[in-house]
Amino acid sequence: MEQNKTNVWKEFSDFLEKENALRTALTLFDWDNETLAPKAAAERTSKVYGVLSASYQELFAGEECGELLSQATSCRGISPLEKALICRIEKEQKKLASIPKEEYRCFSELIAISVQKWSQAKKQDNFALFAPVLEEILSMQKAFASYRAEEGQTPYDVLLSDYEEGFSVEKLDAFFGELKEGLGPLVENVVKRNKAQPESYDFLFQSFDIEKQRHWNKWLAAYLGFQFSRGVFSESEHPFTISLHRDDVRITTHYYKNNLESAIFSTIHEAGHGIFEQGNDDEVAGTLLDGGTCGVHESQSRFYENMLGRSRAFWEPIYGRLQRTFPEELEAISMEAFIRAINRSEPGLIRTESDELTYCLHIIVRYELEKKLMSGTLVVKDLEQEWNRLYEKFLGVTPKTAGEGVLQDIHWAMGEFGYFPSYALGNAMAAQLYAHMDREINLEELLRRGDMDQISGYLREHIHRFGASKGMEQLLLETTGEGLDPRYYLEYLKKKYA
Amino acid sequence: MEQNKTNVWKEFSDFLEKENALRTALTLFDWDNETLAPKAAAERTSKVYGVLSASYQELFAGEECGELLSQATSCRGISPLEKALICRIEKEQKKLASIPKEEYRCFSELIAISVQKWSQAKKQDNFALFAPVLEEILSMQKAFASYRAEEGQTPYDVLLSDYEEGFSVEKLDAFFGELKEGLGPLVENVVKRNKAQPESYDFLFQSFDIEKQRHWNKWLAAYLGFQFSRGVFSESEHPFTISLHRDDVRITTHYYKNNLESAIFSTIHEAGHGIFEQGNDDEVAGTLLDGGTCGVHESQSRFYENMLGRSRAFWEPIYGRLQRTFPEELEAISMEAFIRAINRSEPGLIRTESDELTYCLHIIVRYELEKKLMSGTLVVKDLEQEWNRLYEKFLGVTPKTAGEGVLQDIHWAMGEFGYFPSYALGNAMAAQLYAHMDREINLEELLRRGDMDQISGYLREHIHRFGASKGMEQLLLETTGEGLDPRYYLEYLKKKYA
Repeated sequence: MEQNKTNVWKEFSDFLEKENALRTALTLFDWDNETLAPKAAAERTSKVYGVLSASYQELFAGEECGELLSQATSCRGISPLEKALICRIEKEQKKLASIPKEEYRCFSELIAISVQKWSQAKKQDNFALFAPVLEEILSMQKAFASYRAEEGQTPYDVLLSDYEEGFSVEKLDAFFGELKEGLGPLVENVVKRNKAQPESYDFLFQSFDIEKQRHWNKWLAAYLGFQFSRGVFSESEHPFTISLHRDDVRITTHYYKNNLESAIFSTIHEAGHGIFEQGNDDEVAGTLLDGGTCGVHESQSRFYENMLGRSRAFWEPIYGRLQRTFPEELEAISMEAFIRAINRSEPGLIRTESDELTYCLHIIVRYELEKKLMSGTLVVKDLEQEWNRLYEKFLGVTPKTAGEGVLQDIHWAMGEFGYFPSYALGNAMAAQLYAHMDREINLEELLRRGDMDQISGYLREHIHRFGASKGMEQLLLETTGEGLDPRYYLEYLKKKYA
Repeated sequence: MEQNKTNVWKEFSDFLEKENALRTALTLFDWDNETLAPKAAAERTSKVYGVLSASYQELFAGEECGELLSQATSCRGISPLEKALICRIEKEQKKLASIPKEEYRCFSELIAISVQKWSQAKKQDNFALFAPVLEEILSMQKAFASYRAEEGQTPYDVLLSDYEEGFSVEKLDAFFGELKEGLGPLVENVVKRNKAQPESYDFLFQSFDIEKQRHWNKWLAAYLGFQFSRGVFSESEHPFTISLHRDDVRITTHYYKNNLESAIFSTIHEAGHGIFEQGNDDEVAGTLLDGGTCGVHESQSRFYENMLGRSRAFWEPIYGRLQRTFPEELEAISMEAFIRAINRSEPGLIRTESDELTYCLHIIVRYELEKKLMSGTLVVKDLEQEWNRLYEKFLGVTPKTAGEGVLQDIHWAMGEFGYFPSYALGNAMAAQLYAHMDREINLEELLRRGDMDQISGYLREHIHRFGASKGMEQLLLETTGEGLDPRYYLEYLKKKYA
């Protein structure tokens, strides 16, 4: 039976409001847990989080949601955006309704305390402390994925497609295969050159007053276009971005006294995420289509961090300001030396501190590990050993401690298996976008003039405003005329590092 | 029909969990709005707050809650604590179920943005900017109170009794009458003495490095017994205490470069609230009986702030530490001079900065105003004028701006009509408690030894652990053998200021 759109949409609005309220509340708890909540709070707060998550699940698993969806899909005259929203809700419904109530609540409570357990284990460099929790998370995520796997989909395929629609092991194997092949000779070349012409970048690791770093980075976030009236710029151990909604977007960075570079590139990266969220159209804000899909999100953060933030043109109008902030430390350092330093490449142990060239190798290690963990060919108790083996294989370095090895990332503690590939996809999309944009609006010239508004304006127009209503492939097609193609990324790296 | 307790209680637990989860989420939004949320967020966040509040109301207004309550009340063998919880839920049900759904949601949204409007008006010293919002809040609160007023109760009686069970205009008129009578001659005396022997306390208002103030106040909160592993010590424009639960208690203070005293006494006051909340028994935590009733809560904060914090014995073991923190500023200031300074009395304009002697006069002004506003004999548009008139009458001073007058407090912007008397009741309870405790455990001696543990241990044992399961009268009776008696407070002030 065909449905009257106005009536159906009105009934929907009550559902959407509740969905948005519960999701926003859960997001606020996420923010609070990561930035402020005291240690001993975790146990009681995780119960609260569990109850709210259960209510969220109930909303989707209940009959009402099913009815609303079936009415909506038989509606006439719905717009593409409305259709995208219905699809998104259907996806969420399929996911949440397939998980038994008790299991979902149990998982939500587990997630609300696991980050703290991971953090403790990391501090003590002891993987064994975290392994039992990780095992539990993994087995639940595996089960949840299997509940809704379609014909021919593995559980890992299911998760990959959650983060970026349409992606699968088959597709990513091809993508990473091409990357591996292209990156190999480039990295080899750089390692050789480093040996032949060693250069010191010690000046980045002098003592930099933290209060001054704070001022500088706050200024930098504003320079990039992050709007403070609609956002928060704060600090946390692990820099991240989270949004209550498009008018309350929160980014964090982390300051180290002996590292100038770390906070700067965290700030630029998170500002990239933040500007995306702030650029959402009114129509997607406050719905399941707000924010953006994971791969596209990472494309924006990496675009700001690398394509813009490590370029010479970007620093031209602002390096003097950085020098004036740290006159003693940087007076004698030319802009050329600074640019060379922030673009150096060297295979290392830590993903978040790695350079553009070796970054994807870190992702490949995680992708290989996740594939094995999800398929059961690797068990959690052997994970650390396998991690170390793959680092030796792909990057030629071996972690000495769990903290600089298998425990370095927060993602698995948050239940996020399948997220890591988004970073690599994001890199590739960013490079493809850069090549296109540079032809359209002459990026270098804009950077040199410090005209960040035009750059973010372009991105808002073509990417940000759509939120998650369009995925990576669609956005690339509509903006550049082509689907995702890793060759742009390899080209970009070749030009930079060959 | 008599009910099997175990079965009934099990059904109840689901309800209680949901109640707790929604209430905790709303509390987290309250915290976040006051400490961090960006300005432009208010509009969207207030919608979320409205939806969550509506869910909270629904929980109580629904049939299920009524059934559970009627089953529970006909149970056999319920403990006094369980009985107290049932009563508390009944009270909440009566309150929430009486308000039409749309009105409640509208009110919740209004409250979520009114604090910001008040804050803007205060910054601009313009009462007219805030008056329309205040009018709306007042008329809604009046209506809500009238929906559930019992025979012989005025709407204001209803609100007073919300904050401290059993209190009413009649009871408070008597209480404040006794205070007014006793305070009058004392204040007169002090004003005369100030004129005859003027003393300068300028040393409290030198320039005090804020970072050093931060360190000192953090240490002070810990010294008092506030547990950082189960709490947060932060900053906000208006110091306050809020708890997600007893293992996540948050207190704030505010630093002024030219005022050493302000942050110190805010810290002590809020730590008093915080220690109370952290001292809740496991049985009351996470239920509607957690925290404490308002008057009792203020008795603890004022007990710490004044009875302890302004006493000579309290400063004996720690004044040297304060001097060492600010050697240049305080080296030449003897402890005697410091004690005299923090105990000076002078009628002023600002409640939160007022001394112990004149404090209750500030409360009396607000009480008189609230009575008139609630009964309709005063309208919001004339409030500023009446405020100024009463300040002149009771304190002999007249505000020059709205910011130091009618806009100084946040309470009305939060919808809290009827809260202010809790402060005066708290003062009276604190003095009564002090007189009793000093006989039992020799407070002065403990303070001199810096043994704060024994003091908070006593308070936990007799007050804190019960949360809100016992009100002011009951706690006083059980601890001191007498009901509330303002004469202890007047005695205390007489001894100090006569």
